[in-house]
Amino acid sequence: MNVFVIGIGLIGGSLAKDIKRNRPDSKIYGIDVNEGHLDEALSLSLIDEKADYSQLHLADFVIVGIPVDVMVQELPKILDSIDDDAVVIDAGSTKSLICKVVENHPKRRNFLACHPIAGTEFSGPSAAIEGLFMGKTNIICEIEKTAFKLQEKALELFQQLGMRIRYMNPEAHDKHIAYVSHLSHISSFMLGKTVIEKERNERDIFDMAGSGFESTVRLAKSSPAMWTPIFRQNKENVVETLGEYIQNLKEFEAMLIADDYEGIYNEMNSTNKIKEILNGIPLNKK
Amino acid sequence: MNVFVIGIGLIGGSLAKDIKRNRPDSKIYGIDVNEGHLDEALSLSLIDEKADYSQLHLADFVIVGIPVDVMVQELPKILDSIDDDAVVIDAGSTKSLICKVVENHPKRRNFLACHPIAGTEFSGPSAAIEGLFMGKTNIICEIEKTAFKLQEKALELFQQLGMRIRYMNPEAHDKHIAYVSHLSHISSFMLGKTVIEKERNERDIFDMAGSGFESTVRLAKSSPAMWTPIFRQNKENVVETLGEYIQNLKEFEAMLIADDYEGIYNEMNSTNKIKEILNGIPLNKK
Repeated sequence: MNVFVIGIGLIGGSLAKDIKRNRPDSKIYGIDVNEGHLDEALSLSLIDEKADYSQLHLADFVIVGIPVDVMVQELPKILDSIDDDAVVIDAGSTKSLICKVVENHPKRRNFLACHPIAGTEFSGPSAAIEGLFMGKTNIICEIEKTAFKLQEKALELFQQLGMRIRYMNPEAHDKHIAYVSHLSHISSFMLGKTVIEKERNERDIFDMAGSGFESTVRLAKSSPAMWTPIFRQNKENVVETLGEYIQNLKEFEAMLIADDYEGIYNEMNSTNKIKEILNGIPLNKK
Repeated sequence: MNVFVIGIGLIGGSLAKDIKRNRPDSKIYGIDVNEGHLDEALSLSLIDEKADYSQLHLADFVIVGIPVDVMVQELPKILDSIDDDAVVIDAGSTKSLICKVVENHPKRRNFLACHPIAGTEFSGPSAAIEGLFMGKTNIICEIEKTAFKLQEKALELFQQLGMRIRYMNPEAHDKHIAYVSHLSHISSFMLGKTVIEKERNERDIFDMAGSGFESTVRLAKSSPAMWTPIFRQNKENVVETLGEYIQNLKEFEAMLIADDYEGIYNEMNSTNKIKEILNGIPLNKK
């Protein structure tokens, strides 16, 4: 089985590792604009060989894990280059625009739109982790637009990797993911910014930081090259979500200014039920 | 050595565990308004015996780990009840008001104002962890107001528990801790609230949540009874900090609305240096 991984970073590299483990007979080809990443992927044995689009006709599986702005440019070209029996799987964090750009492509039936909800704040081939997808949700969009045999082929692979499958339309995906992923990243980046700005004038503030701070700003380590196009493609939903978050913070601030500590207590108390909600989330932190 | 732990929860219980391990000859007395917590602490062997204020004259060490509103009421009474050789150590997350209420107490020299920066989002005796304070920063305020012999006694204990000591005045503590701890809690609670509100209308949104979301809302599991009085006592600093955070979020929102993706990229890129900063933080997540 020939697997082409386009974008050999955290997601592409982790998928490559798991595929190799589950199907030792498979040959993994790596394609990446970053030659250094390809060399690193080779030395880490994530891939067996460097490749380019001219070899894509050999592929059984093509996995695309690249920033979503590059994704919408490259996907049509990738589909142009594959054989009729190949399935192209993306791992983009947005789904509407990605599905739209291939909507009328003659090889649309060879494409499966996916978003595996897994990852860490790190990036590049060295961030690849074995078993990253075990127990994690993989959201599949527009399953009906993919050829049935290729659906089966992809689902069999996802099952081997331990993924839980959830079907959703691209618009619902983008709306909901703004709340449970994109907003967390903005909240984290701006928290990091607020404290770094303070640190400029007040030295050694970070000596005082504990694990709580670390946890809330962890996502501020994420890659700007990956996240800028995500916010751009999902602008409408992110703006709505962010507006609601800012409004909630302003209401909290107003209660504090008004010395309404009963109100503050009640807010926190009713939000405490996040405990039960979080108990259902499979974690994948390194 | 007789150690009285007043408030046998996460912090008091973890201190009791470490003291018992380091000084097996010590006898740990527990005092708590919650009778259930005392029974639990006994059955978990966190304490050797239940006690009350009438026995405090037996104490060599008194450790007070109670909500900061109760702290300012109880500390003078505790100091009233101890012997001349005892040292009372608090573990409150605010320091100004606590130092102020005992400022003119006849036993001020028996008190050491502390804030060990350690904890988790859990509470109660069952949340107590062995080794919680290893490598963690313990902020000591107004060290010069504590009797020298009692300073030595306390510092020897902190050293055995593996704490790093940092000296600071109460006002500087409260100002800086607002940034690296109190703000993280508000950010987390309001993020949880925003998503829970959405969930009311949109079922199953949490199936889509990954570890990034979990990390940013972890602190929203924290105890409202503990955190409401912290925000109250540190109101001025928290309001300032929260205002700066909201301003940064609004600027991010404005850039998004204006399609200024270069600006968004630059914001995230310059905040990425939080990576290096976080590398210096000792973690204590369970």
